[in-house]
Order: sequence, then structure tokens, then C-alpha cells
Amino acid sequence: MDGRAVPATFTGVRPAILGTPESRIVEIFNYGRARQGTIPLWVGEGDQPTARFICEAAEQSLRDGQTFYTYQRGIPPLRQALADYLNTQFKANVSDERVIVTGSGMQALHLTAELLLDPGDEVVMVMPVWPNIAAAVTLMGGVLRPVPLRIQDGRWHLDLDELFANCGPRTKALFINSPSNPTGWVMDGADMDRVVEFVRRRGLWLLSDEVYGRLVFDGRPQESFLSRMEPEERLIVINSFSKNWQMTGWRVGWAVIPPSLGQLWENLVQYNTSGVAEFMQRAAVAAITQGEPLVRSIVAQCEAGRDLVVERLGAVPRVRLARPEGAFYAFFAVEGEPDSLALAKRLVDEAGVGLAPGVAFGEAGEGYQRMCFAISPAKLAEALDRLAAALT
Amino acid sequence: MDGRAVPATFTGVRPAILGTPESRIVEIFNYGRARQGTIPLWVGEGDQPTARFICEAAEQSLRDGQTFYTYQRGIPPLRQALADYLNTQFKANVSDERVIVTGSGMQALHLTAELLLDPGDEVVMVMPVWPNIAAAVTLMGGVLRPVPLRIQDGRWHLDLDELFANCGPRTKALFINSPSNPTGWVMDGADMDRVVEFVRRRGLWLLSDEVYGRLVFDGRPQESFLSRMEPEERLIVINSFSKNWQMTGWRVGWAVIPPSLGQLWENLVQYNTSGVAEFMQRAAVAAITQGEPLVRSIVAQCEAGRDLVVERLGAVPRVRLARPEGAFYAFFAVEGEPDSLALAKRLVDEAGVGLAPGVAFGEAGEGYQRMCFAISPAKLAEALDRLAAALT
Repeated sequence: MDGRAVPATFTGVRPAILGTPESRIVEIFNYGRARQGTIPLWVGEGDQPTARFICEAAEQSLRDGQTFYTYQRGIPPLRQALADYLNTQFKANVSDERVIVTGSGMQALHLTAELLLDPGDEVVMVMPVWPNIAAAVTLMGGVLRPVPLRIQDGRWHLDLDELFANCGPRTKALFINSPSNPTGWVMDGADMDRVVEFVRRRGLWLLSDEVYGRLVFDGRPQESFLSRMEPEERLIVINSFSKNWQMTGWRVGWAVIPPSLGQLWENLVQYNTSGVAEFMQRAAVAAITQGEPLVRSIVAQCEAGRDLVVERLGAVPRVRLARPEGAFYAFFAVEGEPDSLALAKRLVDEAGVGLAPGVAFGEAGEGYQRMCFAISPAKLAEALDRLAAALT
Repeated sequence: MDGRAVPATFTGVRPAILGTPESRIVEIFNYGRARQGTIPLWVGEGDQPTARFICEAAEQSLRDGQTFYTYQRGIPPLRQALADYLNTQFKANVSDERVIVTGSGMQALHLTAELLLDPGDEVVMVMPVWPNIAAAVTLMGGVLRPVPLRIQDGRWHLDLDELFANCGPRTKALFINSPSNPTGWVMDGADMDRVVEFVRRRGLWLLSDEVYGRLVFDGRPQESFLSRMEPEERLIVINSFSKNWQMTGWRVGWAVIPPSLGQLWENLVQYNTSGVAEFMQRAAVAAITQGEPLVRSIVAQCEAGRDLVVERLGAVPRVRLARPEGAFYAFFAVEGEPDSLALAKRLVDEAGVGLAPGVAFGEAGEGYQRMCFAISPAKLAEALDRLAAALT
């Protein structure tokens, strides 16, 4: 709680809640929010508002009076469009009944934890990882078993044997986020095959966060666990409109689940936010059915941004950076700077650049900084100039 | 689960989830959704889309590019507008820091349960009640202790001594929804004073769902527990834009909490849906600051609707109806019809009127039907004609 004491009169609050930390990303965001001229690269979003054709679909829906309660699982045309999209882009074979629209990818993660985790249930998780995922687990009383990514030969690397060895008798699920926030690590297809074989054999749930699934570089194939598993297997895939369609502020995502869980999941939606506004969903239909040129331009911009970051930060002697293979973050260590939150604050104050401290992503991330490079080239170049000067 | 068996392969799902029922309101809604000509009075919404001035504020915000991540607790102008509103309408003394914008009143209830309830913790609840509230408690492993409303002298009545006697050593909170969905019962000020005195003495949390707080009839005063308790007392008040501003489909609500819980609540928002879209919040600002004429017209329409329902249904010999004193539902029993779901389905098929079966609101509601009367007078009159014919 960072010194914000909860008074004794609130001992009535759940202990698990007291143990769930404030987001350190939000903390640095709040720290620097009001500082004029800061280039904000702390959160995972670009600098362009949502494309007009997407907004216009929402505006038209509002003018059409689509402001009533709607389907808890999502409107049928959006569920169908999402199934078509997954089948086209990822060679999956998903029926619309497996697709559930959610109020953000985060909500899909939250509902997954609610669906599966009783106190003491373990989730084995590749770290460092976006902190909200770990929090969704601990909120339900679940226990994290972290398995670290390590840098080998200038690339992030996951030891699959170590991953599997961490799955014990209380393990309920394996969580994988590839492409990875914050590291840019991407699991390759052969490793995905091994993971599928392992979870099948052990009867584990596989939770796959594929929010950055379109953002892979260097001509790598776009992969999804959806193309590797059957509908009724223990697989939940989480996704979002935030990153690929520049809709961060909208809070619209989706989950793909086994069809027999449909009614249970609908109940969870009902008892959480009771669905997503129809006019938001109409905008999502526009994004998914007309958004391919936009997505491709975003991916191209991110790849160019990745190249620039690797070139410029890679030339700073104190910086150690593995080349990101996907997503839109550089996750780099700075020699002599073990306290990532202190450095992040100093970079706001002295360089006018907002980064997310690595400690926000778990202990494995301490000593690192996360920088989002999904922004326009000129602004990115300016941020890199400032960082290079401050870190040299 | 009503016969929808979960296969044995999903024994991995939490038992508490399997025990959380499908919403019977949604069940009847889905049953009759496609039947042409049905007058839908099953869910709690009117027949008018959201007012243009509210939609236009969202459209303008979209044109202004307000599509980025925003404040987890809500944008400052909305929090301030809500505090001003509560202080004006309910003679409260609420500072903006106590107001948190949520993705529906439902989400505020869900987060309240997450904040307070560990498995086995009890919530004493006046029943019948909107089923989602009970579900939010049981999802967290909480235990309901229902205390029934009873009809006395043609009015719904709560025995406060019975309510207090149900609070035992494991009781964490007292939940009150007044004006009440589904009964239309309204707790009077003297009883509110007694409740405050009791929860203070016993150190209980008071959870007050004031979603229908403006909808009181016959010149009764509008009351809120906010005007009766101090900021740091154990009070959480839940509210929503859905009913008073005809924004059901938007999913925007708010909670008023003790100020020292601000950071904990922000964490819960962060790890659930990570906030509400800014353009939705701009619409909410328009609703709250320019919506008084709209709210007054909705209240007037509901009171006229209430009068018509009492007059027409009260004349049907088989119907027993206590006069609703608030909210916008009639909750009536039909002689010789103990199975409320069966009757609700028959009324869809034979009368073309969609009602919510009383069993959806707990066992205390079996034998009753809930009818929303927040619709235009001509449509309400037609629905009452059909019901009178079918029930005579």
C-alpha cells in the first residue's frame, strides 16, 4: 500500500484485497500525468485516437437508439465476425458459440480466474508478466508459481522443462502470454506443440493471453493455441480490441471458451457488468470487419519502432536490451540502476520520458524499464534522444 | 443449470460457480425475445432510447478523440458532478474523493462483494431482491441470510426486529435496496435511523443499493443513507445511470465509499475492467448536469404508470398486489398459479406480455410476477388489457 495506511476500522476488508498491490504502472502514470512535455511511454497504448470509421459506427448506433440492454454473451454479428476473424487470421476452427464479448481483455482474465480458482489453487505463469494478470489470480486466493524468462544470446528464452517441472499437484492452470508484455518474447510453434501435449497429459487448463497476437515481427508466423486444440479441451484464449485496433480506452475484449461453458460464462458476465454496450459492440464489428488495413499499418509502425529502439538504445553502453520479437515494448536493464521505480521517476523528472518500472511486472522485472514504442516515429525518436542523453 | 449439464471434463470449474444460477430474468427474456408483438416488461428498462443530449455528449467526445486509457476512479469532472448531485438531491455531504465511477451498478455490487466477503461471511439481505445481488455474494463464497418482506394492510412491510435478529457472529454486512426491486417497498426515514444505529453498534457494513432513489411516489421524501452517516463509517452506497436517466445499455454506475478505501477500490477497478471509457463518462456528465428535467419526467411517467397498474390489476380478482411506493415495478401474486416461471412463459405465449417470474428473486418471490411499468402510457394500457384478459 506504499504508506497509505488502511485504518483499523477497515479490518473488515478481505485480507486478499489488502495483499493485492496498487498497479505500479498506474503509480508512475499518476506521478507524471500532470508534468507538461513528458512523452508518455509508460502504458501500453499509442498516440493516435481510435480511427474515425470505428468511432462513426458507435456514433451511428447511438443515433439509431441502440442504448438498451443487450445479449450478455455479445451481439450475434460481433461473435460471428470474431469467429470469422480468428479462423482467417490464425487458421483456427472456432464457432461463434465459443466467442464471448467482454468488457476488456482484463475482464476476460478476471472472469477466467473467477471461473477456475479457489483459494490455494496454483497458476504457473511465465514471468515477468503484466501485473494485472497476477492480481486477478491472487484476488481469488490463487497462488502464483512464476517461471522466469531469461536472456540467452540476446533473446528472451523460456525453459520448457523448467515450466513443466513447476506444475505440481495443486496446479490448476498454465498461463502464457505470447507475444509477451513486457518482454517482447514470442513462443515458437514447436514449443506451443509441446505445451499442448503437456497440458493434455496433465489435465491442466491452458490460459492463453493472445492480445498481441498480430504484433509479431521479422516475418514470423502469427500463432494461436486455437488452431492446436479442439473445442471441448481445457483452453481459454483471451483477446482485446485495445492494442491491434487502437481502442485502449473502450474496454472491449473477448474470450474463446469451450462451448459447454457458455452458460456458466454468461452467468459470470451477468453478475459482473451485465454485458457490453451495444453501440460499443457495433464499433467493434466495424473494427474487425473493416480494420485490416489499420491493423497492418499499426504492425508496420511497431516493427519500424522496434528497429529504431534496438538501434538507438542498443548503442547506449549502460543499456542491456534483448531484441523484441513481438508486442510493442522494449524491456531493458540499465547498469547501476537496481531500483526501477526510482529510475522511472527520475526519467520523468529529468528526461521528460515516462517509462513503466520493471518491478511492476514482478520481482523478475526489477532492474528493468518497459518502454512502449507504438507511437509516431518523430515522437519516438525524440524520446530516444532524451533517454540516450539521460542514460549515458 | 436447468438441465444444461456441465460435462465431467469440467470438474475443474469452481463449485461456487456451478452453484450460481442462471438469471431467471434472462431466461424468460431469451424465451420470448424472438416472439413478435410481445410487450417486454420483464427487464428493468423503459421503451425510450437514451435522450439525444446524453448521446450527443458521447459522440462529441469520440470526435474529440477521447479514446485513450483514463482515470481508474473516474474522470474528475464526473466525480465532482456526482458529489454535487448527491449533496443537492439527498442533502448528503459527500466529497468527490468518495465517488468512484464503475462499469454499471452491478459492477459496484460485484466489487463490494470482492472487497468484503471471504467464504462463509454472511450478508443479511431483505428479500425478495434482484437476483444479481445475491449472486454477487455467493460468487465470493458468501452466505445469504434472507429476511422477508411481507404484505400487511396492502403494503410491503419489513420487520426490523426480525432483520436485526438475523445478524449473527459471522454477519459482515447488511444489504438494503430501497426503493426495492422487485416489490416497490420503500424504507421510511425512521427505520433508516434505526438501521444506522444498529450497524454502528454492531460494527457491520451497511450496503445500500439506491439505484431507484429518485423513484418515490405520493410525495414521499427522497432518502439516502449518505445523509445519515459520516464519511469514514462502514457504508457503501451503490447507484447507476441505468434507471433514472434511461441509460440501461450503457453500463455506467457509481459507488460512494469511505475515503480511506479509495486506493483499494481503485485496485479492484484496475483488476476488473480497468475503468470506464472516457466518452461514456462525458455522456454521464451531461446526464447528471443537464438531466433534471428528464429525471422528473421519468418519475412522473412512472408514478402515472403505477396508478394505472394498481387500478387495472387491482380490479382482477385473482391478482393480489401491494401498491408500489417506489421503483418502477409491480410485484403481484396470482391465485392458483404457484409456478411463476410456468405462468410467465404462458403469458408470453398466450397474452403477448413478458413478465419476470417471481422465483427469479428468491424463494420468497415464488408465486409472484414482476412487471416493469416504466413505459409509455399507451403501451402500458395495452399490456394491462392483455394481462387482465389472460388472468380473469
